[in-house]
Amino acid sequence: MKIDHVGIAVRKLDEHIATWQKALGVAGSPPEIVESQRVRVSFLEVGESHLELLEPTTPDSPIAKFLEKRGEGIHHVALEVSNLTETLHHLKETGVRLIDEKPRKGARGRLVAFAHPSSFGSVLTEFVQVDASGFEPEAS
Amino acid sequence: MKIDHVGIAVRKLDEHIATWQKALGVAGSPPEIVESQRVRVSFLEVGESHLELLEPTTPDSPIAKFLEKRGEGIHHVALEVSNLTETLHHLKETGVRLIDEKPRKGARGRLVAFAHPSSFGSVLTEFVQVDASGFEPEAS
Repeated sequence: MKIDHVGIAVRKLDEHIATWQKALGVAGSPPEIVESQRVRVSFLEVGESHLELLEPTTPDSPIAKFLEKRGEGIHHVALEVSNLTETLHHLKETGVRLIDEKPRKGARGRLVAFAHPSSFGSVLTEFVQVDASGFEPEAS
Repeated sequence: MKIDHVGIAVRKLDEHIATWQKALGVAGSPPEIVESQRVRVSFLEVGESHLELLEPTTPDSPIAKFLEKRGEGIHHVALEVSNLTETLHHLKETGVRLIDEKPRKGARGRLVAFAHPSSFGSVLTEFVQVDASGFEPEAS
């Protein structure tokens, strides 16, 4: 397991990319829109992990709601696992409350699923599987 | 540069260590008290990084104040750098507001310094140098 990324909610993505670039010389990846989460994101490489800057694209985006309630700041931690389906199964068995019971497609083509903050000391925890080959989302 | 750790403010350290152990099989390090920050901490290894669980030891601990205002949750991100004094110098030159103008001793014998959240999109950012040999704090 490793930290895949730390998600940071921001109001103006481009300004924040410029801030990190200037202060630490870390370039942000070209912004990408994740339709399902209604966010525009950029990733900053830091060792084996990334910082993910998230800007809402609509007022009903989960990130827009977070910004309204708490302002800008760290939003979630994402842990990389090798088999997301197995991890979710195990978490459920140990009593962890899941937001996503099944993997879905996230940014950078990865498979992702969120666990409820109440199960991890109020930390919104995302689990990520890098290799999404063979994944077919179920019809909803 | 890499993510040294992600700091998480908690009310009851031992309960949270047990939670992470049960859900993900990650063991917490034996709790350590950091007098200067008035916290008791444990580190959970995740790849090249750690999650740092922080419990306040006094009501005037910065973590106690954070818990009062925002409740449990992610408190800061710490980035490892090779030369902390140089990094602080560079940050100051680029206009970053520093909480610690000079390195001080933190948990696990590391040298640490915090930058003000206003300079990093409301993210409280800590910088960490692992090798603290030869460090002599200035008389205050």
